[in-house]
Amino acid sequence: MSLDIENSIRRIDWHIDPVSLYKPIEYTLDSGGKRLRPMLVAIACEMFGKSSETVENAAVAIEIFHNFTLLHDDLMDDSPTRRNKPTVHVKWNANTAILSGDAMLIKAYEFLAKIPEKYWAKVLPVFTQTALEVCEGQQFDMDFETKDNVTIDEYFRMIRLKTAVLLACSLKTGAIIADASERDQRLIYDLGIAIGMAFQLKDDYLDTYGTFETLGKRIGDDILCRKKTFLLLTALNNADGNQREHLRTILNSTSIADDRKIAEVTEIYNRLNVAKICEEEINRYYCEAGKLLAEISVADEAKTDIRNLINKLKIREK
Amino acid sequence: MSLDIENSIRRIDWHIDPVSLYKPIEYTLDSGGKRLRPMLVAIACEMFGKSSETVENAAVAIEIFHNFTLLHDDLMDDSPTRRNKPTVHVKWNANTAILSGDAMLIKAYEFLAKIPEKYWAKVLPVFTQTALEVCEGQQFDMDFETKDNVTIDEYFRMIRLKTAVLLACSLKTGAIIADASERDQRLIYDLGIAIGMAFQLKDDYLDTYGTFETLGKRIGDDILCRKKTFLLLTALNNADGNQREHLRTILNSTSIADDRKIAEVTEIYNRLNVAKICEEEINRYYCEAGKLLAEISVADEAKTDIRNLINKLKIREK
Repeated sequence: MSLDIENSIRRIDWHIDPVSLYKPIEYTLDSGGKRLRPMLVAIACEMFGKSSETVENAAVAIEIFHNFTLLHDDLMDDSPTRRNKPTVHVKWNANTAILSGDAMLIKAYEFLAKIPEKYWAKVLPVFTQTALEVCEGQQFDMDFETKDNVTIDEYFRMIRLKTAVLLACSLKTGAIIADASERDQRLIYDLGIAIGMAFQLKDDYLDTYGTFETLGKRIGDDILCRKKTFLLLTALNNADGNQREHLRTILNSTSIADDRKIAEVTEIYNRLNVAKICEEEINRYYCEAGKLLAEISVADEAKTDIRNLINKLKIREK
Repeated sequence: MSLDIENSIRRIDWHIDPVSLYKPIEYTLDSGGKRLRPMLVAIACEMFGKSSETVENAAVAIEIFHNFTLLHDDLMDDSPTRRNKPTVHVKWNANTAILSGDAMLIKAYEFLAKIPEKYWAKVLPVFTQTALEVCEGQQFDMDFETKDNVTIDEYFRMIRLKTAVLLACSLKTGAIIADASERDQRLIYDLGIAIGMAFQLKDDYLDTYGTFETLGKRIGDDILCRKKTFLLLTALNNADGNQREHLRTILNSTSIADDRKIAEVTEIYNRLNVAKICEEEINRYYCEAGKLLAEISVADEAKTDIRNLINKLKIREK
């Protein structure tokens, strides 16, 4: 791939006044991460035969947007660290996190408007729609915290909005700028949704079944904050009355130590076969992704990069 | 003016899922306010001979953006009320204020993209640039809170960014969509800056020299929170060593009752002729606005609406 996204991001000049507004943005974007979304923009563009340098600005825009959501989400969740560094509201303060985040969202639009004008009418509505959906997903996720009877369907709707649509938007944006047909644009969007659903399910899975060494963060956080993950909802769904009662008692207990709480809930998960069910669900989405990819009307060789990326995501342990 | 902005805003459907995200947006936009910015978009458009209905979406976009900034500013300043209603972070919570605000900023872009495509290339960069500048202005304003030696020039730069550029952007957007010449677009932008500077200076003035009855809020809040207003900075500038010391002592005192603090600081302002200096500064900007208006190349009758609006702003007491 010809596009060096890390370099594109590093080249943005944030040393402008007021430093107190722009420095936290540079800090956020400097923190690395997988750069999965800009990679998807680039891969989709090359799949349809254009150099990925063509989509540099769109890729940067989407990466800035994604980091804006992380910045505000971390503030809303009061997360102390992100990628092993203090979050912006911890390193600076809440107001800085709010305002620098706002500026990032505007900057995302600034970069998006740098794509050739003839693609604006196709790209802007997809981006705006997606951005709203990501907010909706975050809102549903927050609503879940105080909602007792979250269904698996509601969970799927939430992760579709919070995670999957932005991956889909990334692929579609690359395809649009590479002049892909409407049909291929739809197919690659749906492919992004499938990858995104699998991606989020894997995140849920790893939070309980990953290891500290590979994941680089504590295992079991989702259990401790009683997050309505696929694992928990599946467990609650498949448990009999006694097991459900037991699971709820452990989760809500304030006297059980963290380590024991994680061990006991994982034990219940294991008894209910939750890891397996989650893996099957992930495979189901990857299977769907494979079918969608097969339908896209470019030569098989042009699909190598996206296929390699999907294979990497499949086996990721972090 | 043919555009009914109140109706345009009321017609937007916010009853969509998740209600917890969109309800606070409707609440914010329902709170009224002067609707000054959409009015400026409409007036500029009609000045150059097009029906103001043409700019409905642009006007709505800018009003949504403005209300987004109020929503996030109120959270950052922890203001309890806005237009006699509890602010969003008080009525709901901080996270709602953050996320609903984010969604409003995206919605502003959504409405902006509803203007005819042929104007996008002119309108989008002005809006994006302005939106960033408004964030910069808010950041400078927050930086001033802990900065001791704010100069009048720094103050002017801050209010230009925080307040004036959005009025200027409103007028320019209306002019662009009405196919005004580049020269007239520049003139009307600068006219908006002049009006905006006068507007903010008047806000500072009224906070000390207005009345509770007309303003509908307590007088002297700026003094109590030691805000670096034009009045305070002018007083500090023009005071001799003793007066400056005295002023600082009163402002920083934690033992003087609020009413007395306001009375004593106002007394110092009076002795230093601060109200008069502020009024002169306001007049200077309105004088500049008048000159710029005269240069705009449309018939004098076409300037009636903007002239009437300026006259209203000149004598406003709230």
